[in-house]
Amino acid sequence: MSNGDIFVGEVIGTAILILFGAGVCAAVSLRYSKARASGWVVIAFGWGFGVLAGAYTAAPLSGGHLNPAVTIGIAVDTGTWDTVWVYVLGQMVGAMLGAVLAYLVYLAQFQANVPKVGSADEPMPTLGIFSTIPEIRNPVANIVTETIATTALVLPVLAFGLTKGLGESGTQALIVSLLVVGIGLSLGGPTGYAINPARDLGPRIVHTFLPIPNKGTSDWGYAWVPVVGPMLGGALAGLIYNAAF
Amino acid sequence: MSNGDIFVGEVIGTAILILFGAGVCAAVSLRYSKARASGWVVIAFGWGFGVLAGAYTAAPLSGGHLNPAVTIGIAVDTGTWDTVWVYVLGQMVGAMLGAVLAYLVYLAQFQANVPKVGSADEPMPTLGIFSTIPEIRNPVANIVTETIATTALVLPVLAFGLTKGLGESGTQALIVSLLVVGIGLSLGGPTGYAINPARDLGPRIVHTFLPIPNKGTSDWGYAWVPVVGPMLGGALAGLIYNAAF
Amino acid sequence: MSNGDIFVGEVIGTAILILFGAGVCAAVSLRYSKARASGWVVIAFGWGFGVLAGAYTAAPLSGGHLNPAVTIGIAVDTGTWDTVWVYVLGQMVGAMLGAVLAYLVYLAQFQANVPKVGSADEPMPTLGIFSTIPEIRNPVANIVTETIATTALVLPVLAFGLTKGLGESGTQALIVSLLVVGIGLSLGGPTGYAINPARDLGPRIVHTFLPIPNKGTSDWGYAWVPVVGPMLGGALAGLIYNAAF
Amino acid sequence: MSNGDIFVGEVIGTAILILFGAGVCAAVSLRYSKARASGWVVIAFGWGFGVLAGAYTAAPLSGGHLNPAVTIGIAVDTGTWDTVWVYVLGQMVGAMLGAVLAYLVYLAQFQANVPKVGSADEPMPTLGIFSTIPEIRNPVANIVTETIATTALVLPVLAFGLTKGLGESGTQALIVSLLVVGIGLSLGGPTGYAINPARDLGPRIVHTFLPIPNKGTSDWGYAWVPVVGPMLGGALAGLIYNAAF
Repeated sequence: MSNGDIFVGEVIGTAILILFGAGVCAAVSLRYSKARASGWVVIAFGWGFGVLAGAYTAAPLSGGHLNPAVTIGIAVDTGTWDTVWVYVLGQMVGAMLGAVLAYLVYLAQFQANVPKVGSADEPMPTLGIFSTIPEIRNPVANIVTETIATTALVLPVLAFGLTKGLGESGTQALIVSLLVVGIGLSLGGPTGYAINPARDLGPRIVHTFLPIPNKGTSDWGYAWVPVVGPMLGGALAGLIYNAAF
Repeated sequence: MSNGDIFVGEVIGTAILILFGAGVCAAVSLRYSKARASGWVVIAFGWGFGVLAGAYTAAPLSGGHLNPAVTIGIAVDTGTWDTVWVYVLGQMVGAMLGAVLAYLVYLAQFQANVPKVGSADEPMPTLGIFSTIPEIRNPVANIVTETIATTALVLPVLAFGLTKGLGESGTQALIVSLLVVGIGLSLGGPTGYAINPARDLGPRIVHTFLPIPNKGTSDWGYAWVPVVGPMLGGALAGLIYNAAF
Repeated sequence: MSNGDIFVGEVIGTAILILFGAGVCAAVSLRYSKARASGWVVIAFGWGFGVLAGAYTAAPLSGGHLNPAVTIGIAVDTGTWDTVWVYVLGQMVGAMLGAVLAYLVYLAQFQANVPKVGSADEPMPTLGIFSTIPEIRNPVANIVTETIATTALVLPVLAFGLTKGLGESGTQALIVSLLVVGIGLSLGGPTGYAINPARDLGPRIVHTFLPIPNKGTSDWGYAWVPVVGPMLGGALAGLIYNAAF
Repeated sequence: MSNGDIFVGEVIGTAILILFGAGVCAAVSLRYSKARASGWVVIAFGWGFGVLAGAYTAAPLSGGHLNPAVTIGIAVDTGTWDTVWVYVLGQMVGAMLGAVLAYLVYLAQFQANVPKVGSADEPMPTLGIFSTIPEIRNPVANIVTETIATTALVLPVLAFGLTKGLGESGTQALIVSLLVVGIGLSLGGPTGYAINPARDLGPRIVHTFLPIPNKGTSDWGYAWVPVVGPMLGGALAGLIYNAAF
């Protein structure tokens, strides 16, 4: 794979991932959305099928990592680091692009995030649509949560993906997407499961600049946690894989 | 594939798709349905598995497009337009047939859409069972939503479907159906995700003529949006695919 | 396949199907169940994965029809009727066995179906755990619903199953199980989707004899509808398949 | 497979399974979790995709049993018992490790299990996150429930897994995980579906020692039921498989 293919693949794939992921958070939380308040199961499946759509699309070009933690885990495992920067650059650009696309899909809803005459609905903070916010702000506990959750994603990807060569059948993309659904359902409760530095940082940058009424804080004080935790988790998965398999 | 096979395949497959899709909207919204008020997750999986059922059935005859936006995306990508009219004609006939079938499945429920003595339930408008209605009526925003959502469907279909040849295993139909679930969960909030001109226009025509008590408006003023948006999205996916892959 | 293998396979597979299906209805409706009131999505996935479990198990022995409507659809299509009686006999025995197993799994819950001191919960009729009950009792409409829903099951099974030979991969059983989930979500609202004569009649016989406190009526006046409708639907699918494919 | 590979595979795979499974129970029940009160469908899919993640990871090393009942069922079927102790030892160690990991993921939530000033939320017993608790305590009925539910898991695994050799494609792991979802939805109502002695006993040991505030009883009086029931169910599946297939 050429660097150009890797970059384009990761941009497109990660953009689709974030379009679906930020999209489902908008769907569940914004006023005037048909999916409003439809619950955690919708969030988890929306993100998971975003992985499916993005990985499925990017696979022919870049293999479809879509996540610096996956790229790091593979690099730790294989010892090959020379294309890591291309992957991560593509993932960051794609994540920002996807956040903009999700904003456009929900444009009228974002514009309606103003006090409504005769309604009890108040404008809501919007960062949760773009980036993660912990339920209990505790950097050590939040890092531990993100690290373990990311290891639980990257270790299965390494264990099966690299040893079985299933890329041709699509079954691998399907299984990985359901792993992501499972991580959301099971491990997303405390921090909202970034498990992907680009997924959190890219949309946070976009949120900082988007002209959304009453958008609230972009919470940059927390931004390092969903970057560091997933990178630790990806590296840890690479080390465990090397030791055990 | 002969034109006859394409036509028959698209009629049957699209009829099954709309039977499931209009069916699940009826299931969730009509009085005297066991699935009443069961939520957005039911809507999204019902439509997705309708794609599975329809594509799975139509695949041996026509390849199972079931959607003019998919047909247009493939035509833009391949430059071959000579069977497009057969596909679209079959899809429109199938969508109308499927809407009639869904009406028949819920016949007693539709007939019960009258004021009920001693109940607070009033007759409800029924167009939402057949066609899409935006939460916020804003043609520019609605077109943008439908265009992006359709591109997010057709681009993965092109990227993987045309390069891997998975039609024999059924895995491709499964993955596409889960993409549709994901689009519903994530991008369906603003407009109800037509992402398919035939899916919206065919049932709207049927709704105009069906003898449903208190059926309400067929809202023809909005009908062009879920036709134009998905066609733009399909064409855009073809252009992106040609440029990037 | 010998008649003995067919019989044993259909007994085991149908018993597993009904164990899951009657089980999920018990799970959602009985007092003292952890899944109580968990909604239609649980019902539909429970039945669907019951098809997966049963078909997956029975496939090596009998091919895993588990449903007289499927057996009839295949017979109409192929013109071969000589093993139909073995399939149907196995399906009926299996359906009754599965209903007894589901009763045993929820034994303590069934025994607790008595007035509870200090509770507003009254004993509930239990037939809905075993067999289908229409929301609106209208034999013509109910037959139409069951016929169309069964055709929507059997036609995809015929169209793909017979032409692609996927039995070895397990993907076919998975796709058929998700079709059943979709039929439940989309078409189950009016009648509770028997779509299988054995699934309704076998458990109804068992319900008539089981010693459940306050079990309520077994509603034999409706029993012919979920037998005749699905048989019509299976035959119709066979005819459509023969004509179109 | 060497004993070392089996042990390591079962430790890692079962740890992932319990991480997801205890994790989803924590997600749904703990205060300050984004998934709080999201219902039975979340529980069932969380456990099922835990099986997917664990089995997918362990498959190259140990085949991914992750459950003494599966190991016993295979041993009864094949008559080969010499590696059973390695599997079960790995499963027990893995289950304890996974329970600790789930505790760490929800560390801040567990530490917040104290009375909250100005809130109606009281500290809650926490055993249900780690081990199963029956809705109605009746050892005979509870054993019957666990035995039948485990047979419904192990018999399909034997019937298809041993005869088709699907380990390479990942489809088998996917189907087994959906079987587990189905068992949870359908048969989990009475006892919370241990269906795996290690899944219940390992986390119960961990719960006994973890420093969780207000953690409540570890309920050792019930601990034998979810060990004995699943072992009976696994053995029964082996016997049925030998007799019928």
